[in-house]
Amino acid sequence: MAVLPGLDYSRRMDEILSHIDANLDASLSRLFELLKIPSISAQPAHAGDCRKAALWACNELRAMGFTARLSETAGLPGVIAQHHAAGPDAPHVLFYGHYDVQPADPLALWHSDPFDPQIIDGPRGKRIVGRGAVDDKGQVVSFFEACRAHLATTGTLPVRLTILLEGEEECGSPSLAELLANERDALAADFVLVADTNMWNFETPAITTSLRGLAAVEVTIKGPSRDLHSGLFGGIALNPINALTRILGDLHDDQGNIRIPGFYDGIQPVPDELAASWRSLGFDPDVFLGDVGLTSPAGEHGQSPLAQLWARPTADINGIYGGYQGDGPKTVIPAEATGKLTFRLVPGQNPEQILANFERFVSDRLRPDAKASFQYFGAAPGFAVSPTAPFMQAARAALHAEFGKPAALIGCGASIPVVEAFKTHLGLDTLLAGFGLDDDAIHSPNEKFEVACFHRGARAHARLLKAFAG
Amino acid sequence: MAVLPGLDYSRRMDEILSHIDANLDASLSRLFELLKIPSISAQPAHAGDCRKAALWACNELRAMGFTARLSETAGLPGVIAQHHAAGPDAPHVLFYGHYDVQPADPLALWHSDPFDPQIIDGPRGKRIVGRGAVDDKGQVVSFFEACRAHLATTGTLPVRLTILLEGEEECGSPSLAELLANERDALAADFVLVADTNMWNFETPAITTSLRGLAAVEVTIKGPSRDLHSGLFGGIALNPINALTRILGDLHDDQGNIRIPGFYDGIQPVPDELAASWRSLGFDPDVFLGDVGLTSPAGEHGQSPLAQLWARPTADINGIYGGYQGDGPKTVIPAEATGKLTFRLVPGQNPEQILANFERFVSDRLRPDAKASFQYFGAAPGFAVSPTAPFMQAARAALHAEFGKPAALIGCGASIPVVEAFKTHLGLDTLLAGFGLDDDAIHSPNEKFEVACFHRGARAHARLLKAFAG
Repeated sequence: MAVLPGLDYSRRMDEILSHIDANLDASLSRLFELLKIPSISAQPAHAGDCRKAALWACNELRAMGFTARLSETAGLPGVIAQHHAAGPDAPHVLFYGHYDVQPADPLALWHSDPFDPQIIDGPRGKRIVGRGAVDDKGQVVSFFEACRAHLATTGTLPVRLTILLEGEEECGSPSLAELLANERDALAADFVLVADTNMWNFETPAITTSLRGLAAVEVTIKGPSRDLHSGLFGGIALNPINALTRILGDLHDDQGNIRIPGFYDGIQPVPDELAASWRSLGFDPDVFLGDVGLTSPAGEHGQSPLAQLWARPTADINGIYGGYQGDGPKTVIPAEATGKLTFRLVPGQNPEQILANFERFVSDRLRPDAKASFQYFGAAPGFAVSPTAPFMQAARAALHAEFGKPAALIGCGASIPVVEAFKTHLGLDTLLAGFGLDDDAIHSPNEKFEVACFHRGARAHARLLKAFAG
Repeated sequence: MAVLPGLDYSRRMDEILSHIDANLDASLSRLFELLKIPSISAQPAHAGDCRKAALWACNELRAMGFTARLSETAGLPGVIAQHHAAGPDAPHVLFYGHYDVQPADPLALWHSDPFDPQIIDGPRGKRIVGRGAVDDKGQVVSFFEACRAHLATTGTLPVRLTILLEGEEECGSPSLAELLANERDALAADFVLVADTNMWNFETPAITTSLRGLAAVEVTIKGPSRDLHSGLFGGIALNPINALTRILGDLHDDQGNIRIPGFYDGIQPVPDELAASWRSLGFDPDVFLGDVGLTSPAGEHGQSPLAQLWARPTADINGIYGGYQGDGPKTVIPAEATGKLTFRLVPGQNPEQILANFERFVSDRLRPDAKASFQYFGAAPGFAVSPTAPFMQAARAALHAEFGKPAALIGCGASIPVVEAFKTHLGLDTLLAGFGLDDDAIHSPNEKFEVACFHRGARAHARLLKAFAG
């Protein structure tokens, strides 16, 4: 179908949105086809189902006018689809989603078959229940439906669009780097749109403008060459657990600041516009912490609760072990003790330098006979997109139009590996705008997606596609 | 057999010792009868064997002229034997040993059947190999042979003697308190002689004059009500592992002193005579520590290595756990973390007060949202006998005479539960003088007892019995 020159979207957008509204039931039926395929990437027995889900997406996209194909990897295939009728001068958007889902276990806790999706009533109206309802099949299909409405209404898309669906997101994306390398040319877009995140709340869309990075390390302190009797050796023999707690207990000062030398080097203040947006969110730390049995923000004194979550780095011990762990006491001085740590990092921090500085922090504190060894599990920097970047401005306007209120500009304290991968392998920034809710129970029994979120997600995606075109 | 009044031991001692020398092979044969009985108290299948070993001892002692009987408990019986012909004015010695043995596992590492004892050649002459060779059957039988020599030579014993053999020493003495309570009248001696310890070295006997006590506690720090994602909550949420390491890492100051308030209250300096004895031992901390891969005494600065082992209290973390312990990283903030600690205590310290002060030490350091719970596993004070107590003086003279050099007056950094039990239940002090060696491999495969140690042990016991009589 040919491009219609000078398409007047100020008029056509209403038609596109009406098309989405009018075809909601058909859209849900298509989503259900995909939800019924148990494409559990973590379970080899479901490899065929994963491939079936990938082919389902190819077929859907081809039917809409995309070129679409599987892109094989050492693992499960990716799906690459393109609709470039908007021409070489139009912006090139790369949409990312994934067709695989988490295992459904524990099955006994589901109220219905996880792969026989249901529409049920909920406090916010109808909801879709099933594995993958929101993560990520529901979000992917809501984007497909936006494309479908554009194509049905105008015969084309306002941007050059490449769609990448991954098949291994739920098991750590082992083949993503290979996929991105293999498809570098096909994926040479202007930016990435990822629909795998949540709204701020049911009324308010959100754009995630920053993610924290991660550096992970395990440190083992070795002392005596074997476990010792604490009576026969206690006092004279270095105790590796005592040594480990002494070192790790020194990670923070009394104000919650991290004492690793150079830890804060390179960190910039939060931009004023973001800080203002955060203040407007009405975030209630009492509720947030109260939900998990806590009362007090535990981070650096003087930093706001949201800054502690989104904009400040951390040093958390995620695991510790050494010596006896059974019931009762045991009079042992163990040969070693281990701590596992992760540092959440923010833009400006250099992950490799942080790990090197941590190693020095430990080594500087070693007493005689304490030997430290380190194992590293990867390091990724923090990520941030300026809220004033052009694609961000476009997205904010589109979401504002759909929801009648500005999108919340939020941070995320966690990392999203695909965002890092797009930056590393393709040099692309990512727009994170999704339509899930925090109570959607992703990865858990009875995963759900509000029908209203699916529907507004499709409408918002339709507006986004137009907005990106300028 | 009647007491021979005015028995001249200055002459008869040589005869007694010669009797031991001349009957060494017969003594070993008797020991082998006992070693062949697999009296493994930890294994219910061997309950009959344990009883058989107890009856064997009864029979041996009755044949020598003792009254002897089993003393039933909820568990395995004790053996109570008495020979009180020395009359009411003679000192009353309570000998303690145990007839049970450790399991023989791992069987594959034994060079011969653990319950088919062998005499083999070793660097110090012949040695007895078998489970219980030294711990404690060999030590018990060497004492029996000392009694036998006295009785055969003089027709009596120089002291009132009560023998108590326990059948559950190797599985934690669960019935010992009951046994001591049941037999309080029979066991009303002047002091206890325990033959279950080692010489200083092959040439030098030893008397253990002090033991460290023990207080054991487990502390759990709880934070959030469930495990949290360290990305979504890191920074704002209290991390119980960080909190635990911060508290426990503060246990010692930079000089190795323990920072719990009042921890050192009541500790007296080591008596000059003991300190002089320790200096004369030629203890080489480089060798002692080098054997376990260490180089530097890790205790309080300014305290000698032997003081760190025997005379100074400790605060050792014996176990620690929390969060993730598998391979790789996991981005979790766990709901809780636990440390297990033991404090080795010296005379003067109050165990209950130490535990109360530790609880305060932890509580004083709790940040908001950190909740500490404590579990206690018993507390026993340190133990010391004056090196100038009369029975000590007698023992030192007897051992000096047998070995041609003074007995080493040593400490032990561990506790010996029976010593505490005799003090608690009977109000009796204990003389710890045994004839094992540090390389006897007790509790391990190929446990052995040097024939020379067995032989000299019998001779030394014969001299001790006389020396106690004054």
